[in-house]
Amino acid sequence: MVVIELPDGSKMELDAPASPAAVAEKISPRLAKAALAAQVDDALCDLAVELTDGAHRVKIITDRDAEAMDILRHTAAHVMAQAVRRLYGDQVQYSIGPALTDDFQYGFYYDFDLPVAIGADDLEKIEQEMRRIISEKIPTVRKDLPIADARRLFEELGQGYKVEMIDDLVRDERLQTVSVYEHADFVDLCRGPHLPDTGRVKAVKLITVAGAYWRGDEKNKMLTRIYGVAYFDKKQLQAHLGKIEEARKRDHRLLGKQLELFLISDQVGPGLVLWMPRGTIIRMELQNWLQGELTRRGYQTVITPHIGRLDLYRTSGHYPYYKDSQFPPIKIGDDGYLLKPMNCPHHIQIYKATQHSYRDLPVRLAEFGTVYRWELSGELNGMIRSRGYTCDDAHIFCTGDQVEAEIESCLDLVKLALSALGLDDYRVRFSLRGTDSDKYVGDPANWDQAEANIRHVLVKLGMNFTEELGEAAFYGPKIDFIVKDCFGREWQLGTVQVDYNLPQRFDLEYIGSDNTAHRPVMIHRAPFGALGRFIGILIEHFGGAFPLWLAPVQVAVLPVSDKFNDYGTQVLEAVREAGLRAELDAAPDKIGAKIRRWALQKVPYLFVVGGREAEAGSVAVRCRGVGDVGAVPLAEIIGKLTGERDSRALESPFAAESC
Amino acid sequence: MVVIELPDGSKMELDAPASPAAVAEKISPRLAKAALAAQVDDALCDLAVELTDGAHRVKIITDRDAEAMDILRHTAAHVMAQAVRRLYGDQVQYSIGPALTDDFQYGFYYDFDLPVAIGADDLEKIEQEMRRIISEKIPTVRKDLPIADARRLFEELGQGYKVEMIDDLVRDERLQTVSVYEHADFVDLCRGPHLPDTGRVKAVKLITVAGAYWRGDEKNKMLTRIYGVAYFDKKQLQAHLGKIEEARKRDHRLLGKQLELFLISDQVGPGLVLWMPRGTIIRMELQNWLQGELTRRGYQTVITPHIGRLDLYRTSGHYPYYKDSQFPPIKIGDDGYLLKPMNCPHHIQIYKATQHSYRDLPVRLAEFGTVYRWELSGELNGMIRSRGYTCDDAHIFCTGDQVEAEIESCLDLVKLALSALGLDDYRVRFSLRGTDSDKYVGDPANWDQAEANIRHVLVKLGMNFTEELGEAAFYGPKIDFIVKDCFGREWQLGTVQVDYNLPQRFDLEYIGSDNTAHRPVMIHRAPFGALGRFIGILIEHFGGAFPLWLAPVQVAVLPVSDKFNDYGTQVLEAVREAGLRAELDAAPDKIGAKIRRWALQKVPYLFVVGGREAEAGSVAVRCRGVGDVGAVPLAEIIGKLTGERDSRALESPFAAESC
Repeated sequence: MVVIELPDGSKMELDAPASPAAVAEKISPRLAKAALAAQVDDALCDLAVELTDGAHRVKIITDRDAEAMDILRHTAAHVMAQAVRRLYGDQVQYSIGPALTDDFQYGFYYDFDLPVAIGADDLEKIEQEMRRIISEKIPTVRKDLPIADARRLFEELGQGYKVEMIDDLVRDERLQTVSVYEHADFVDLCRGPHLPDTGRVKAVKLITVAGAYWRGDEKNKMLTRIYGVAYFDKKQLQAHLGKIEEARKRDHRLLGKQLELFLISDQVGPGLVLWMPRGTIIRMELQNWLQGELTRRGYQTVITPHIGRLDLYRTSGHYPYYKDSQFPPIKIGDDGYLLKPMNCPHHIQIYKATQHSYRDLPVRLAEFGTVYRWELSGELNGMIRSRGYTCDDAHIFCTGDQVEAEIESCLDLVKLALSALGLDDYRVRFSLRGTDSDKYVGDPANWDQAEANIRHVLVKLGMNFTEELGEAAFYGPKIDFIVKDCFGREWQLGTVQVDYNLPQRFDLEYIGSDNTAHRPVMIHRAPFGALGRFIGILIEHFGGAFPLWLAPVQVAVLPVSDKFNDYGTQVLEAVREAGLRAELDAAPDKIGAKIRRWALQKVPYLFVVGGREAEAGSVAVRCRGVGDVGAVPLAEIIGKLTGERDSRALESPFAAESC
Repeated sequence: MVVIELPDGSKMELDAPASPAAVAEKISPRLAKAALAAQVDDALCDLAVELTDGAHRVKIITDRDAEAMDILRHTAAHVMAQAVRRLYGDQVQYSIGPALTDDFQYGFYYDFDLPVAIGADDLEKIEQEMRRIISEKIPTVRKDLPIADARRLFEELGQGYKVEMIDDLVRDERLQTVSVYEHADFVDLCRGPHLPDTGRVKAVKLITVAGAYWRGDEKNKMLTRIYGVAYFDKKQLQAHLGKIEEARKRDHRLLGKQLELFLISDQVGPGLVLWMPRGTIIRMELQNWLQGELTRRGYQTVITPHIGRLDLYRTSGHYPYYKDSQFPPIKIGDDGYLLKPMNCPHHIQIYKATQHSYRDLPVRLAEFGTVYRWELSGELNGMIRSRGYTCDDAHIFCTGDQVEAEIESCLDLVKLALSALGLDDYRVRFSLRGTDSDKYVGDPANWDQAEANIRHVLVKLGMNFTEELGEAAFYGPKIDFIVKDCFGREWQLGTVQVDYNLPQRFDLEYIGSDNTAHRPVMIHRAPFGALGRFIGILIEHFGGAFPLWLAPVQVAVLPVSDKFNDYGTQVLEAVREAGLRAELDAAPDKIGAKIRRWALQKVPYLFVVGGREAEAGSVAVRCRGVGDVGAVPLAEIIGKLTGERDSRALESPFAAESC
């Protein structure tokens, strides 16, 4: 006898053999039709799974449940592999095909070893075959096979990657069987669960094709990766594709070129960002604003070199331990220098240069410090993932008693920095040490204290946070801000980390009130993180339409014809006099062409000037995102704009008025 | 018959053999006694030189002539070598011993290969021996020997370095004889001229001893270099030694440590400057001030990476041509990256990233760009000569027609920058191409034009300049500012250079009004030059007592006792509110100790606060370099100080009042 407890607490009894499908059927035919999978005693499984005798908690999963998407994507990946195999024949080898949970663009992918090269043009054909498989509504059948049988099966099918994966699985001696899923002519090694049949995949679209190394290792064969998305209805798919299209238009690499913000030159090197004048303005505005906050908060600014001797990094532990993620050393005789991969060892030298008393602490050293890391070329992405970047870095040296207050102040600064840019949709991840205490350096009592401090501050500030055990750095607990952009994509930005390791490695000290030497605690923190990455994200978030205070050109003055260039120049000078960044367009073009030109540059305000404006001492204002707002006296509009700039408003006052 | 024309135009006749000594004798016994050497037909020579038949212009050199110092130093070097040889025996080899003309500290040196190691403690003994030689008034005797005889002479004396030098001379086939100078037991290979006898060296002092490689090459033997100074009277010597002592106290390395401005850490690497918080303040104040000027002058700021691919520098011609003065490449596979030795190739990439019309020119790209150069460790000198430095660099891309106006604007900026720091004592060196036209790239007509442009601007601005033929860079003419500091030491600071080479190598273009492609001209310019070097010089120039606007701490608030710490805090907050950098000294020390502590830090203003001040809402002001100026109402002193700061005054208004 199988006793079922449903999510609403009600119970039902079924004769064995029972399955979730039978449970759904017993509840209602409608639910049976909608059922896709089930959650049995906390584990997700197929509808057809056999329920053993005894009590079980069962929840039927339909397309209304969050868990359904992952299962759908997984089944869609199988369908894609089946389609590719049908189209390109038995020689097709399929390796790995996961569902993607955190990816904005893609729902799933599958990596293939193909007998022919394929490209974007082939995706339509594969999609058609997938739709055929979907219309065939082929049931998915799970089988649990002894490992040796499974190995033989895939060997016979010529699926070498699967054989290799099974050989890896064998290393776990507890494992007796593995599961495979079949739909008709297709079989895959898979843990499941899956939708009951291929017909449940209602809407699919393949997005792109790319190269990917087997097991992500450059030394292995390059496979063909196909990315796709799947939905339970066509409307959702269309909405998603619309979002992707919008994101493509907002790609910071595209906008960076169009708006002349930055440049990556192959002659200088891949992943190395050259900030063009307009991009530099955005960065300097952000830096200057943050610098003001730092001064107010008692930070001291320092400037350190971009290289350091290998021995410095041997002491810090960054070399040779992390050497694969760094540029190779500059070798000079027996000695060598490293492009600095982080600023901490340099700041530590400055801390050590003078003696510190407990009365001087905390010492807060800040630097917009440029560091260099070796990223694989396939992982580079404009400013967002580069090989050189500037951190809004700081290191706080404090006593144990000061840790809590300093963390609070750091969190406050990160919150301020994010909300200044309107990035208010974020969650906080608090990473603690795990149970495997060997991994962590420093006194466990210090850890307990620091973790308690952080938790206390997070609660006190009323922050939405999750604790993640075992995710701390080996040197101390940390806090990360995971920010959602306008597309709902998540980015890890600001970070605050407590460190017991470097103070010990560099033998840092302060003289306590007891007149003896003590070890300070270090806090690493960066509110924006890497400035290039942050600005790359901002470009996409704002679609290049930056708030006035950040806009590289804030005002474009557009005379309707040559006759009014003189008045245009007067207006330009008055606007610049107010410290606004303005340009005059005196080209011999029609006013429509001028407006289009500067609107494409996403300039917040266009001042159109002709005879009527020259006479009245006014300008005809076009506000970005709002449109024509009519003639405004020059002094008045300048006052309005300087107010908007100085308050670092995210939106024009005209936008508010027009609502 | 020898016919002599004297500087005043008068003439005299002498029977051959005649000499300048005879000329002096004939003019007056007093001149004969004062005579040290002579200028005959533009060449300096000994008094005893034999004048050939015919007409000669003769000027007798005495200690009142500028030329005398160089001859004195040269003879003093011989005297020193003679003394060392007397003291340390025949095994002493002496190599090179020049007079130094532009050196502030030293008048001459001699490099020795010694049988024993000597140090600073031995200098007194050598000086004593020199004084003995001086008191012996040994005549200096010149002999012109056939080269083979001279070679044999020095071989017999065991002077291998001299033999090597003679072997080098032999390569010039026109040379038949060489000159040697003897005084008693000492003989040296020397071009002369020299003082008539050792007794004319009136005052000598040996300053220091150092190591120096033979011919300046690390691969050769390290010799012992002894530096000294010589004067015609003891008062001048004392004045010079006083100046050296003052300069030692002002050594920027010493003050940099004492005032906590910067740090060089062996763990980071020799020659790599870490800017401590107070040094960073000075640098940022200078940078921010200059940045304001740049924005006003239509410069656009950019930010570029600190490395570039080797190919970039192969195109620019900096690699492998200048590779010895650079850090070795970072090697990655067949490719490599170089720490950037200059910013130009990066700025060129930014220029090239967009198409330019003649209407957009000039494009002026500025960057506070950090570059790295490999300097020999023996040549490192704190911030003044380092392996990494930040230039206030800019590159102007313009048409040929714009060159003159751009140079004028650059010169104007350099003048402004130097005068802002009170460095008004400078000369300008204008380096033109030489007659050896093969050395120079670019169209000779362009060179003529650019040289004429520069000369025109220099004349127009009424600048004190010298033209130096053959001193131009191979890529174009240049202008350097040679600035005198408060010790009369000369430093090459601001520079403006015209460049025809890089635009060609990188194939730069703009579209002219004729709608075809033209090549722009590049101007490199840096008003301060390297910021570290400039600030190092400023530290010494101001002796660490920076003008208010640059002072890291502008005001120290010193309560006379604990009781007045609260009022001190109020004062501190009011001062900081006005944007002044202030510190409160609430330590439990006597007021005298507090005043000494902050005076040592060269803080411009100390506000002493006690009961009377708290009651009156005033502060007792001590002004650096002036002293106590009495109680001043708080609001009044803050107004005075913000005025001093905002006007970037070089002197306190209290100093002006106290004059």
